[in-house]
Amino acid sequence: MSLRAKTILVTGASRGLGLEFVRQLLELPTPPEVLIAACRDPEKAEDLQRLTKSNSAVKIVKLDVEKDDEIDKTVEVVSNYVGERGLNLLINNAGILYKQMPGNIADVTREIMQKHFSVNVTSQVMMSQKCLPLLLKASSLSGSNELSTSKAAVIMISAIRGSQTLINAEGPLGFIHYKCSKTALDMATVLLARELRDVGILVTALHPGWVKTDMGSSEAPLGIEESIRDCLRTIGRAGEESNGKLIDLKGNILPY
Amino acid sequence: MSLRAKTILVTGASRGLGLEFVRQLLELPTPPEVLIAACRDPEKAEDLQRLTKSNSAVKIVKLDVEKDDEIDKTVEVVSNYVGERGLNLLINNAGILYKQMPGNIADVTREIMQKHFSVNVTSQVMMSQKCLPLLLKASSLSGSNELSTSKAAVIMISAIRGSQTLINAEGPLGFIHYKCSKTALDMATVLLARELRDVGILVTALHPGWVKTDMGSSEAPLGIEESIRDCLRTIGRAGEESNGKLIDLKGNILPY
Repeated sequence: MSLRAKTILVTGASRGLGLEFVRQLLELPTPPEVLIAACRDPEKAEDLQRLTKSNSAVKIVKLDVEKDDEIDKTVEVVSNYVGERGLNLLINNAGILYKQMPGNIADVTREIMQKHFSVNVTSQVMMSQKCLPLLLKASSLSGSNELSTSKAAVIMISAIRGSQTLINAEGPLGFIHYKCSKTALDMATVLLARELRDVGILVTALHPGWVKTDMGSSEAPLGIEESIRDCLRTIGRAGEESNGKLIDLKGNILPY
Repeated sequence: MSLRAKTILVTGASRGLGLEFVRQLLELPTPPEVLIAACRDPEKAEDLQRLTKSNSAVKIVKLDVEKDDEIDKTVEVVSNYVGERGLNLLINNAGILYKQMPGNIADVTREIMQKHFSVNVTSQVMMSQKCLPLLLKASSLSGSNELSTSKAAVIMISAIRGSQTLINAEGPLGFIHYKCSKTALDMATVLLARELRDVGILVTALHPGWVKTDMGSSEAPLGIEESIRDCLRTIGRAGEESNGKLIDLKGNILPY
């Protein structure tokens, strides 16, 4: 099944994966009727501006996910645009990876750890909380009893590096700050998924692959277009079986 | 094998599990030569004072684990007391659970989430970082090549509620702030364990059970004396097989 969400909110939309989500969402066979593209500094988001100008389905909003007042304003804007439809899909894409230190036990700092928890976990939970009334509205309007991203869903953009099982077995060391935050985000996904299942909202954590972005660096094996094409296919198909799970861009369930 | 660590540092030692760790450590067949009991407010820690007075093996130090300068001072005190022996065992016991709200998606707050990450994860990583030179010293002095808590180890007091596998399957909802922090702590354990294995330092996360303490409440099924008796037995036996794992008080490995 391909994605048929009528109303979508994407955070971190000015560049990287977020920008490509916006681009490819607009090219879907059934594009969203309303697409809210949130980013920290819309005035500097030239690529996003260029991509979406003269497209009346898109609304760009200013959002620093660490600021509750900006989240409130964003939700107000979303609410006004989506109206009675509610919000079908929240893509919590905004996130950080500080790479200016190895992030080993010897050099990781308190400030950097707390910053990653703030941006990569706490802010995603707050976004989900504040969007909940809009997601509930979309869920209640759906004729289907099945969980799906076309009905009502939160997709957390996470990372395979948050898998304790895989990191324990192998995988590179370092970036403690980033990995602990992604693991915590996956736990938030588990908890939200269990809480919201009964009200028809799907919650899934998605690993988009290691992608050639500013975050992923040019060494990454995967192009951004390919990553998001797979991500959107997988998001479109996601249902009960991936609720509360960490899945990769191909839809495979990863171990916690 | 029973615990034979000569030098031990316990955080959060003024009450609950921390206080009982101190009490039972002093009653071991081979008690530690130096036991540093750290707590936020030594002057108010009357039970700890009473328990340890006239015992020259014990040194009480003031430590708020969220304050790097107090960690530095604590490490200095530890260093002076343990001398050339280094530190065999760091028990990162200090932790919080805010229970004045259900901690569901509807009511959890940014401030409470960040506070739990700070106390329950980031501070434990910082404690481990600052104690690393002392742990390395103890490790290098040991004649054994095997990982053990009598040689050099960090025990993270964690919780079964941080297991994504178990929470996803069943288990109570709520306390998102607490559970996400414990999951992140378990990931920190995985990463530290892999990093420090080659220098002979064991790192394990330990679930002490649901215990009748201020945190666990009077509803808890397990008495504090019984919990710590089992914890110490399990800590004493811990080795390579529990490195980077979350284990319970009986020594069973829990799923991530």
